[in-house]
Amino acid sequence: MPYDLVIQNGTIATASDVFQADIGIRDGVIVQIGRDLGEAVESIDATGRYVLPGGIDSHVHIAQPSGEGIVMADDFESGTRSALFGGNTTILPFCLQEKGRPLREALKAYHAFADGNCYTDVSFHLIVSDPSDAVLGQELPALVEDGYTSFKVFMTYEDLRLSDGQILDTMDVARRTGALVMVHCENEDAIRYLIGRHEAEGDVAPRAHATTRPVAVEREATHRAVSLAEVADVPLVIVHVSNRESMEEIERARRRGRKVIGETCPQYLMLTADDLDGMDWEGAKFVCSPPPRDAESQEACWDGLERGVFDLFSSDHCPFRYDDPAGKRNPKGMTSFRHIPNGIPGVELRLPILFSEGVNKGRIDLPRFVALTATNQAKTYGLYPRKGTIAIGADADIAIWDPALTRTVRHAEMHDGADYSPYEGLELTGWPTIVVLGGKLMVSDGALVGRKGDGRYRSRDRSYLATRRDRPTAL
Amino acid sequence: MPYDLVIQNGTIATASDVFQADIGIRDGVIVQIGRDLGEAVESIDATGRYVLPGGIDSHVHIAQPSGEGIVMADDFESGTRSALFGGNTTILPFCLQEKGRPLREALKAYHAFADGNCYTDVSFHLIVSDPSDAVLGQELPALVEDGYTSFKVFMTYEDLRLSDGQILDTMDVARRTGALVMVHCENEDAIRYLIGRHEAEGDVAPRAHATTRPVAVEREATHRAVSLAEVADVPLVIVHVSNRESMEEIERARRRGRKVIGETCPQYLMLTADDLDGMDWEGAKFVCSPPPRDAESQEACWDGLERGVFDLFSSDHCPFRYDDPAGKRNPKGMTSFRHIPNGIPGVELRLPILFSEGVNKGRIDLPRFVALTATNQAKTYGLYPRKGTIAIGADADIAIWDPALTRTVRHAEMHDGADYSPYEGLELTGWPTIVVLGGKLMVSDGALVGRKGDGRYRSRDRSYLATRRDRPTAL
Amino acid sequence: MPYDLVIQNGTIATASDVFQADIGIRDGVIVQIGRDLGEAVESIDATGRYVLPGGIDSHVHIAQPSGEGIVMADDFESGTRSALFGGNTTILPFCLQEKGRPLREALKAYHAFADGNCYTDVSFHLIVSDPSDAVLGQELPALVEDGYTSFKVFMTYEDLRLSDGQILDTMDVARRTGALVMVHCENEDAIRYLIGRHEAEGDVAPRAHATTRPVAVEREATHRAVSLAEVADVPLVIVHVSNRESMEEIERARRRGRKVIGETCPQYLMLTADDLDGMDWEGAKFVCSPPPRDAESQEACWDGLERGVFDLFSSDHCPFRYDDPAGKRNPKGMTSFRHIPNGIPGVELRLPILFSEGVNKGRIDLPRFVALTATNQAKTYGLYPRKGTIAIGADADIAIWDPALTRTVRHAEMHDGADYSPYEGLELTGWPTIVVLGGKLMVSDGALVGRKGDGRYRSRDRSYLATRRDRPTAL
Amino acid sequence: MPYDLVIQNGTIATASDVFQADIGIRDGVIVQIGRDLGEAVESIDATGRYVLPGGIDSHVHIAQPSGEGIVMADDFESGTRSALFGGNTTILPFCLQEKGRPLREALKAYHAFADGNCYTDVSFHLIVSDPSDAVLGQELPALVEDGYTSFKVFMTYEDLRLSDGQILDTMDVARRTGALVMVHCENEDAIRYLIGRHEAEGDVAPRAHATTRPVAVEREATHRAVSLAEVADVPLVIVHVSNRESMEEIERARRRGRKVIGETCPQYLMLTADDLDGMDWEGAKFVCSPPPRDAESQEACWDGLERGVFDLFSSDHCPFRYDDPAGKRNPKGMTSFRHIPNGIPGVELRLPILFSEGVNKGRIDLPRFVALTATNQAKTYGLYPRKGTIAIGADADIAIWDPALTRTVRHAEMHDGADYSPYEGLELTGWPTIVVLGGKLMVSDGALVGRKGDGRYRSRDRSYLATRRDRPTAL
Repeated sequence: MPYDLVIQNGTIATASDVFQADIGIRDGVIVQIGRDLGEAVESIDATGRYVLPGGIDSHVHIAQPSGEGIVMADDFESGTRSALFGGNTTILPFCLQEKGRPLREALKAYHAFADGNCYTDVSFHLIVSDPSDAVLGQELPALVEDGYTSFKVFMTYEDLRLSDGQILDTMDVARRTGALVMVHCENEDAIRYLIGRHEAEGDVAPRAHATTRPVAVEREATHRAVSLAEVADVPLVIVHVSNRESMEEIERARRRGRKVIGETCPQYLMLTADDLDGMDWEGAKFVCSPPPRDAESQEACWDGLERGVFDLFSSDHCPFRYDDPAGKRNPKGMTSFRHIPNGIPGVELRLPILFSEGVNKGRIDLPRFVALTATNQAKTYGLYPRKGTIAIGADADIAIWDPALTRTVRHAEMHDGADYSPYEGLELTGWPTIVVLGGKLMVSDGALVGRKGDGRYRSRDRSYLATRRDRPTAL
Repeated sequence: MPYDLVIQNGTIATASDVFQADIGIRDGVIVQIGRDLGEAVESIDATGRYVLPGGIDSHVHIAQPSGEGIVMADDFESGTRSALFGGNTTILPFCLQEKGRPLREALKAYHAFADGNCYTDVSFHLIVSDPSDAVLGQELPALVEDGYTSFKVFMTYEDLRLSDGQILDTMDVARRTGALVMVHCENEDAIRYLIGRHEAEGDVAPRAHATTRPVAVEREATHRAVSLAEVADVPLVIVHVSNRESMEEIERARRRGRKVIGETCPQYLMLTADDLDGMDWEGAKFVCSPPPRDAESQEACWDGLERGVFDLFSSDHCPFRYDDPAGKRNPKGMTSFRHIPNGIPGVELRLPILFSEGVNKGRIDLPRFVALTATNQAKTYGLYPRKGTIAIGADADIAIWDPALTRTVRHAEMHDGADYSPYEGLELTGWPTIVVLGGKLMVSDGALVGRKGDGRYRSRDRSYLATRRDRPTAL
Repeated sequence: MPYDLVIQNGTIATASDVFQADIGIRDGVIVQIGRDLGEAVESIDATGRYVLPGGIDSHVHIAQPSGEGIVMADDFESGTRSALFGGNTTILPFCLQEKGRPLREALKAYHAFADGNCYTDVSFHLIVSDPSDAVLGQELPALVEDGYTSFKVFMTYEDLRLSDGQILDTMDVARRTGALVMVHCENEDAIRYLIGRHEAEGDVAPRAHATTRPVAVEREATHRAVSLAEVADVPLVIVHVSNRESMEEIERARRRGRKVIGETCPQYLMLTADDLDGMDWEGAKFVCSPPPRDAESQEACWDGLERGVFDLFSSDHCPFRYDDPAGKRNPKGMTSFRHIPNGIPGVELRLPILFSEGVNKGRIDLPRFVALTATNQAKTYGLYPRKGTIAIGADADIAIWDPALTRTVRHAEMHDGADYSPYEGLELTGWPTIVVLGGKLMVSDGALVGRKGDGRYRSRDRSYLATRRDRPTAL
Repeated sequence: MPYDLVIQNGTIATASDVFQADIGIRDGVIVQIGRDLGEAVESIDATGRYVLPGGIDSHVHIAQPSGEGIVMADDFESGTRSALFGGNTTILPFCLQEKGRPLREALKAYHAFADGNCYTDVSFHLIVSDPSDAVLGQELPALVEDGYTSFKVFMTYEDLRLSDGQILDTMDVARRTGALVMVHCENEDAIRYLIGRHEAEGDVAPRAHATTRPVAVEREATHRAVSLAEVADVPLVIVHVSNRESMEEIERARRRGRKVIGETCPQYLMLTADDLDGMDWEGAKFVCSPPPRDAESQEACWDGLERGVFDLFSSDHCPFRYDDPAGKRNPKGMTSFRHIPNGIPGVELRLPILFSEGVNKGRIDLPRFVALTATNQAKTYGLYPRKGTIAIGADADIAIWDPALTRTVRHAEMHDGADYSPYEGLELTGWPTIVVLGGKLMVSDGALVGRKGDGRYRSRDRSYLATRRDRPTAL
């Protein structure tokens, strides 16, 4: 019986190995890896290319309601299209609970947004903003059973932050159900105190976003989060780590025997707080939380990727338009940094940035690239072994990379819904040119050939972290 | 002109030096140190004795309103009498703000309790339990000017804990006024979460007091407190540290350039959580917060005293009767550890314990003993150079120690208002036998010769920490 | 064209993945991984078994001349046979330079010992015992070109230890040629000083072997070795690490940006210094260097395997007979621990111990097992991608494991040349039952079917560490 | 009976206290401290001045034979005169054993150099360069009994360095006799390796002195020294520490329970390696070992003084003329940095530098200044309580400081035998203007009034470190 698709002559990489072989795909699944595979309906020649597992971006904000009535720049259509062109085949956006409302309600709406609109597979994390007794006692446990196996909690943002007690109660659900908790670590009270001092001094330009969220504020919350997880005895993911001191909290926790996974993002490798200094509120284009730091912190984050402090490299894609149809992106923003929406786009450039700056510059090798961007993501969030690797039985989610292709980042050529890229003008070498989703060709030589709706919602198993006894660095 | 009092032939120790000399006292003040001083109205022969600055115990709870209607076992009379017999000449109890009420109101009552009733000098820390705008904006700054130069805030106890924002606001007053903040570091939310789990399992014996307040809970709060102080940019005192992990938070903060003072107490050198296992609720006699830990933590605390992680050794005297006039000490306590009042007596044994176990066993030397128990206490809390040392111009507050006297602790022979000692039966070598307060003989050969009211309230200057640019370990 | 051999229905594991598939082998190489592979000359049914890369043991002493005329218990025949039964397909013994003689001379003899006698593939590390100008200037660089790409240097053993200057000169050859340096880290002078003190006190029983080689002696040498590598700017392997303090030196070096690989061994997981206390010199059976430590160190070594402090798990197989043909194993040993030969057997039990105690007890997962015992070993020592994984194009070196088979260690059933096992009586679950070397069946259901000489010498490429810019933990 | 001398109205500081009082001196000893002391033969008015213990500089090289026939620039006359003007009353130079010769022989010559030539009191450390059996077995123990209670050993300098075994043997003498070992920590082999590489590249300018002695070389030797002391179980002094990594070795050792004292020097606060870049070999003026580092290391050394990592602040005065009578200071130096004598002058500016940069700039307070420069020095080296403090019974060695006097460093106005100062042009505020030695006025308002020979040799007791059980930071 012929294969549906064969990818020939490429160099395949997994999180462990690099080797030359052909891949035979049938019914959307990888069924053969080897040489001289025989007949196929369709074939792709990958000579001189890398054949990698499709990227999984586990930290993406899409179509998420934001405070102050601001509309997020990506819906599922534009967000997954942008992800696809960035070499991804699965993304995990967050379904946000509205305060006082059941999670099911938010999920129903979120599924409706996604259904039929996706170019990649998707799965949803839950953001718990209101851990009422009903949510903790009935709803969350049932949702874990239904395949929503990860919750995110916030220690910052006035409308989202949970108290330590609420975080513990949410962790306790994770403990009992085998779900996984992700934490955004910044101390809201400390930020508000610093905002108060800045405002008292009339210092309200975008740069103040960074100075009101200093490293101490992130380090404090990171240590608190790992300590709460220690008290509740659950594994933990610390998302978007920006600096060495917070990294040390992760390492210290591990030395105490805790299962803690660290994640960092492109902005912490490529941007600094100086970018927020932009003239005429251009700095607003770089506002995200935690804020980018400085050159030393960039080096620290690379070090963390190399040494395994970080097991995940995600985008924290969270796009807002700079100029929006209704006028200036942030009319109130013009009077204070406090009103600039937090978040920048990144889902399309996450992989090219890590490939160009990491693999091509010799900081990490190809297996480490695959681990950070696909395999560890799948294992951490319950998608493995269906996704995240090239192995017999796995979904045929594959990105084919031209390691020598050099392009300069131009937002005009990108596929998201925002109106700028924080990396405009950056020259990167190494880009995905072909993307296959479940055995179906979606991007071919840089052109979209797949269709909206080819990507599907996928429920998830429990995290590898929650089901194994051993430590996280051995992902 | 003859001296009022001369202390002859003793071995004097300061935080730096040990030497033989006589001390001449006039008008309550040390005016001469040397040999052959000449005429005196009165003289004490200290041959073979150590002549030390009177102890200053900066962490004492006396006549403090406690939750659940429980009466503290010491008022100013019994508390200062007990302190005096323990070699102290000054103690610093806490004046507790009642929620919703001005601090001045509490102070007025507290002064009334103390006036005319003291056997040692006293000064008051403030406990800020309700940092309203009025308190932060007007009352506290005025009180600092009036000599109430230190505030304590709690991160635990439901009725006392402040939020991080409230702590920062209180620290900000300290920043602006030069006052000093002390913090009780335990994460209340985490404790309540653990209490919930213990209660769900029916585990309510006194030992649960320790297991619901594990090291992680204290370490977390310690790191948070030093981080908040870093954000507010103020020096800080971490009181009653019980274990190595919390010590490391202090050391890490210092390496980041922060001024942080650490304090430990006798219970962390001499007791362990096993003491809470006592039969028939005898374990309740050892309930204090943080709880005593284990042998390794005791060793860590000694190490901290030796290496300068701790600059203060205080009692955290907080006495409750085990059997009280109205029946069992804690009738509700019989149903759960949660209702055992937190606190144990210690003001009378703090110095003998450190002397016997520390100086006599060679762990610390005499200058270090003086520094930990008097000089550093005076410098930290604005009593130096009036108190805390033996130097020209200082108050003649002096304790004369017999380093070879061995006694076994018997509560029946002690002078506090409680009905037990957690150290009953402990044999200690080295006791104060004579105590002089402001040049007046108060205890002579173990007998009380001073009178109630000889001790006075003393307002304080700002802390050395708040007025110096350099680091705390150079106290 | 039919496959020479197909392994069917097993669960395959690599350092990254676990999946079910068949493996097709032709000409000694893996050519196909998938399902329904088609015709094969021979087939193995691996239903319910794990199909793993054959173990690579990079730290093995065989037929190595030892001081004091003692004969090592294994030659290549018995040593590789024992290795094979332990699930290994490649071992790397050490070729020892005789002082004053060229390395080529030792190599010639060592090749002669090995030729035609091996049951596994072999490759040789060089032990540099006499780094003369000729050796450093001409011989070593030429040998690196010839595929001897790793050198070991000793900081202990009077006849083997090099000075710091000699180590630096040897490292400098590595720097210039891309070879890799391995170091045995113990401070010889400190050991000799302690031996002197022990002998002066008449303390010469086997236990003294441990007390004269305390942790401080290993930690010191470990820090020195990584510092010398820092000065010479070369990557480094720290072999047979026994304790947490030495682990911390590796971690500190990595945080300084150094490429340092750590190795630990079964004896540091399973034995303690108490084993040396054996009656009637039975303790001699456990004498190896560094010595086994204590339960806390065992836990530390597990932690190091889990957290990635260790990337290699090797045996340090170094067998001596306890009773030898000429009488007692160590006649001089009967008078002092100093004369007990250092080393214990382990090549046959390395993998079963890690599998049973690590994988089956949930400390590490199967990919980590494969990484530690095969993939990382191959990458570190220049055998990758030919060996160390199951991938297209790799040698068909495969061990098939029965994860549920429980056996008790009995030396009588083992295959090495020693007369005891330090693990006698240990019950282990999970054993290799089939071993395939280069596509040839060597062990079938526990019986030897391969022949002496089936194993061959394999020259090696340069280490992955020496050719990559990035850090070692990303192996 | 009248006092011989009274110092009136000054502000006295000890390592603990600051207070206003008069000092009464009789027979060279302080006999009274107080007010209205009564009659005196002589009196000094210290109004507005600080009255401090005379400085003790425990790290001074004077009249020490140096390699390559170079003559040290100071003999006892010029060296002690320079020290005296710098506010010192005691210095401890090193008596260097000549290889193959008894220590007694060197001592005899050294005493002859000193006798009758000193302006300050002196005492001698021994440098053990040849620890033969005779030296270790008989001579050293006898010399300890005679009051030579400290030995220095070197880990660098080809002609002075001891092997680890020799260091251990020397430490063992200290263990048995209660003497104290000081170590110069730099790895000679590593330095020679780097020199080889520099020379091979023709890089021989003075700056190469710094690049061939990088931080790793000092850190390595520091850890080795503390580890050897751990093996031998003796306290240890690490002299002239230059950087944060070496400081961390001291702190780590203390956390392991070791008694380790750290010392730093003015050059590590005020100079950097950039100073070695001087044109036309001017950089040679700043050559000392370890070399000055960079601004971050300066900050680290200040941090170490503040946090108590350093208990000693000494000069490491080791003067050579830049231009010498016989022509250029270092004729061979003109061809390579290797021939520049190691060492710079500093005994006269040690105290003014620490006072001006430390006390006046608020980094340390006056008691810490006294501790670092006098009290700790006396306690560490067995001169306490005779020297190092202002207390009854102590030698009347006193420096009176004008804290507001500002002077610019001009070598022309200094009193040593060198022909330059590395601090030329530095403006310092706070200078000693009056110096009293044993009750005798030596410097009065900046003029020499004492006579050569007023300073005497003083034998020493055992170090406080060697006789106490507790840790060093509690000096």
